Amino acid sequence: MKEKLLSRIKYPQDLRKLSLDQLPILAQELRNFVINIVATKEGHLGASLGVIELTIALHYIFDTPNDLLVWDVGHQAYPHKILTGRKDLFHTNRQLHGISGFPKRSESEYDTFGVGHSSTSISAVLGMAIASKLKGNITKQHIAVIGDASIASGMAFEGLNHAGVTDANMLVILNDNSIGIDPSVGALKEYLTKAKVGYKPKTDNIIEALNFSYFGPVDGHDLPGLLKTLENLKNKKGPKLLHIITTKGKGLKQAEENQVKYHAPGKFDAATGELVPKKDTQEPPKFQDVFGHTILELARKNKDIIGITPAMPTGSSLKYMMEEMPDRAFDVGIAEQHAVTLAAGMATQGLIPFCTIYSTFLQRAYDQLIHDVALQNLPVVFCIDRAGLVGADGATHHGVFDIAYTNCIPNMIVAAPLDEIELRNLLYTASLRLDNPISIRYPRGRGRILDWKKDMTEVPIGKAKCLLEMDSDIAILSTGTIGSNVSDTLDTLSAKVSHYHFCFIKPLDKELLKEILQKHKIIITVEDGVIKGGFGHSIISFVNENKLGNKIYTLGIPDNFIHHGTTEELQDICGISSSKIKETILRLL
Amino acid sequence: MKEKLLSRIKYPQDLRKLSLDQLPILAQELRNFVINIVATKEGHLGASLGVIELTIALHYIFDTPNDLLVWDVGHQAYPHKILTGRKDLFHTNRQLHGISGFPKRSESEYDTFGVGHSSTSISAVLGMAIASKLKGNITKQHIAVIGDASIASGMAFEGLNHAGVTDANMLVILNDNSIGIDPSVGALKEYLTKAKVGYKPKTDNIIEALNFSYFGPVDGHDLPGLLKTLENLKNKKGPKLLHIITTKGKGLKQAEENQVKYHAPGKFDAATGELVPKKDTQEPPKFQDVFGHTILELARKNKDIIGITPAMPTGSSLKYMMEEMPDRAFDVGIAEQHAVTLAAGMATQGLIPFCTIYSTFLQRAYDQLIHDVALQNLPVVFCIDRAGLVGADGATHHGVFDIAYTNCIPNMIVAAPLDEIELRNLLYTASLRLDNPISIRYPRGRGRILDWKKDMTEVPIGKAKCLLEMDSDIAILSTGTIGSNVSDTLDTLSAKVSHYHFCFIKPLDKELLKEILQKHKIIITVEDGVIKGGFGHSIISFVNENKLGNKIYTLGIPDNFIHHGTTEELQDICGISSSKIKETILRLL
Repeated sequence: MKEKLLSRIKYPQDLRKLSLDQLPILAQELRNFVINIVATKEGHLGASLGVIELTIALHYIFDTPNDLLVWDVGHQAYPHKILTGRKDLFHTNRQLHGISGFPKRSESEYDTFGVGHSSTSISAVLGMAIASKLKGNITKQHIAVIGDASIASGMAFEGLNHAGVTDANMLVILNDNSIGIDPSVGALKEYLTKAKVGYKPKTDNIIEALNFSYFGPVDGHDLPGLLKTLENLKNKKGPKLLHIITTKGKGLKQAEENQVKYHAPGKFDAATGELVPKKDTQEPPKFQDVFGHTILELARKNKDIIGITPAMPTGSSLKYMMEEMPDRAFDVGIAEQHAVTLAAGMATQGLIPFCTIYSTFLQRAYDQLIHDVALQNLPVVFCIDRAGLVGADGATHHGVFDIAYTNCIPNMIVAAPLDEIELRNLLYTASLRLDNPISIRYPRGRGRILDWKKDMTEVPIGKAKCLLEMDSDIAILSTGTIGSNVSDTLDTLSAKVSHYHFCFIKPLDKELLKEILQKHKIIITVEDGVIKGGFGHSIISFVNENKLGNKIYTLGIPDNFIHHGTTEELQDICGISSSKIKETILRLL
Repeated sequence: MKEKLLSRIKYPQDLRKLSLDQLPILAQELRNFVINIVATKEGHLGASLGVIELTIALHYIFDTPNDLLVWDVGHQAYPHKILTGRKDLFHTNRQLHGISGFPKRSESEYDTFGVGHSSTSISAVLGMAIASKLKGNITKQHIAVIGDASIASGMAFEGLNHAGVTDANMLVILNDNSIGIDPSVGALKEYLTKAKVGYKPKTDNIIEALNFSYFGPVDGHDLPGLLKTLENLKNKKGPKLLHIITTKGKGLKQAEENQVKYHAPGKFDAATGELVPKKDTQEPPKFQDVFGHTILELARKNKDIIGITPAMPTGSSLKYMMEEMPDRAFDVGIAEQHAVTLAAGMATQGLIPFCTIYSTFLQRAYDQLIHDVALQNLPVVFCIDRAGLVGADGATHHGVFDIAYTNCIPNMIVAAPLDEIELRNLLYTASLRLDNPISIRYPRGRGRILDWKKDMTEVPIGKAKCLLEMDSDIAILSTGTIGSNVSDTLDTLSAKVSHYHFCFIKPLDKELLKEILQKHKIIITVEDGVIKGGFGHSIISFVNENKLGNKIYTLGIPDNFIHHGTTEELQDICGISSSKIKETILRLL
């Protein structure tokens, strides 16, 4: 199909020149455009297909970018990007120097607020609406589009609770498709589920209780209906919520039928929707699967083990335990704060909760980590997934702060295993009930060991390991799976360099560290995390404390935000790829 | 009045021997006991007076400590402490080595979960209830007591939203007195306000929408009624909420009439309720008032300035601006996450939001600080109140992590003024709209300068100052108001020691720092924050990076949790009191 209408549209002002009759045709073209590009370039598919009609309707009815539109999370913003000046760049989506997979202020004036983490849109839009009012602008519109999984997060409730006592001119569009990345959970979701298009049994009450005017539910794929509803809402003052019902993956059969898989399906056939089959070669496991299968194995033997994920059963691979032991593995929804304190409550009763949270999302529960877990020294096990640079998801999703923000908390054990087997052994060790809370960080993606399901052994807490001992001036101290990059480098290097791996950032192996510092003048530390407050800084501080004179070179994430690209490209930019580590060594030799 | 009944009660088992008729008499005795001790020993008064009847009823009806009871926040837990083995220790409340002002697991088996920050109780109790169920214990009761200000926080919503889809045997008691520390705000509060004892217009709906069984509202001071209601609820399964209406400060006229003042009134006359008048000597201002009066002064001149506080208008002194400019100064309730992203939304529209948050509570908005403010490099001004050791409130409230957790975030300016005048100048500087977000930390309590309302001048970002230059081996580098302790020490010392103050922890004044490090062999850093990842570590890292050989001694909060006592006592324990700084200097001379 030729994109006759879409090809004429660069900005919303072009869209607004179309007649109402043309819009459904444009919707079909836009849907195809998204499918065709994501099929080969990969990315987030399902959410964007679900808001094709909504996106057209919003930009048609409202005066963007003067009217301010915020997409919560932003997985669903591809059609928005395509209609706001980025159609010709859309094939660069999520690539290094290409456009971001999420709305981003620096990219376009239509991206009024950068997103990535969920449930921020209501607060941001309320802030904008209050600003407009203070400036005397009473016609400007302020719109947040938020999904049913995201609105159930505490932060969204806080935004609604405040907005409801203001007269801010804001519209919240609840895009209700009963799914986030995995199916939505929780009492609010069950409540919303009772609402059907044209039927609202008390559905207004919970929203109206918060002083919002409630409209809907309406069919989010009925473009003429949406246009009419939005046009009407333009003239209603005060905080209002429009409840629309959509289907994630709308218009691609497989994406509608398998919404979890087609959230970000990888490459697929644009014509048939079929996934491109994986090559039949055996691959090492994802670290997520090492976690997911190992916790299940441990839980079968120890009935005190509990699994908790805030809305990432598939992404974290906790789903295996959830399937076999639904009573002991919990998806609590997008509720990191609750997840952590729930775990703390369980730990007081002798359970051993494994809380699996992405590094970047654990930032949401930092207070609970300090106040509810560490202060009470409860043996909660934090499985910090997506630690380090995560690649194409970019700046909002890199898990680079966790070493710094956990290392400064008393009582915490901070661990970063080298590989699949050490991760497994750490999980086993934590399952024996430690005297402290522990964080175990591991990256997005695959390891390197095919035969990883070995018998598990206990890891001595606080012990580091020599991986390569040389009679050399230089020693490399690595922590976490980035240690593999170091090993790769040293494999190709004729020069003598020692390599030690610190599985424990805290407590440090002071005994071995002293030995290392006595044997080697020059130390290079390597970590997949921010340098400031990280592992390398702990080593520098140890050198100072012990009046040793070693010079430490710290490799890690520098003090600026890193954007998107492949993980390898980004590691290169930060100087922690194998080749960049090699350059550092050669420079120091 | 003699405490005839109370004197016979050490533990709840003794309480349960009383007849129903005796309980109202006990309530009077208990109320008097609290008033008499808090009148002279100080502490949190109003919240405890409001739950005298509830506390007696809970311990009478439920089998504590086997049944698990969690007090949200914990300001209201004095009667609980008195009835659970700590009556004779109650006069040591909040003192060094005395009992804590909050429930604390290490203190008593009746304190099932440590609290201090709000809105954790529902999550913790749900965790306990799930644990009991997994252990096959179906009779154990799990009770959270939470106020109407705390239940409106996002975290509490997350807990309710999860609990509602479980069959956990838990009871949430909503203690509704329309006030937290300041009057409650928000849409949920307005909704709850419609409920009166015996009358519930739809009040059940918002709770029942979340799958909780709703009971009430009942009069929380009607002891016989409470006893009967709780007895009935014991046999109801699943998640349930009892809504009780109470009066904060109940039974002391002044405390009922001036609930904000009598939250923690300081010393007062137990018989009359009158506050002990302050001595008529002129005192230096609280840092809070420096902030509160200065932001108002700045806001009068610059209409872009906005003030935001999450539920601390009195504590932060934002109340002055709220009174004069209600449109531009916001109390958003206990909603730190929302507060920060609201500020970010405002900043996108050109406003200059000053977000005043206690250091320990900003932990609740760590993700928003990174993801919504710093990543977008929006010039939000964080006025970090209660930074450093806070004294009697203890471990849950010390603001000691903020240097470490902000310093690792790109784009942030991290500042700690030396005194009132520098704080004022920093606020002025920030009001000129910086290119970056800034955190400005200052402590609880009073400064030292009577004549602080000077004309304001711009502070050059990233510049440190020499306070005392000596031809000496030793230099002290301080940051923040703890620098006064250093000056005090140096005033009493005949030895030569230089003193530099770093108002900016980031960016560091590298130029001056190099000079200092060249002039002085030995450096002592002093900060009122954790050593790990703090200011001192930044200095060590700079020394390493520049291949200088200085030995750095870092004074600050060590890597363990610090409990309660006076600020001076705690500074002494941590080695940052004047006398302890002196000892360090003398040791190094």
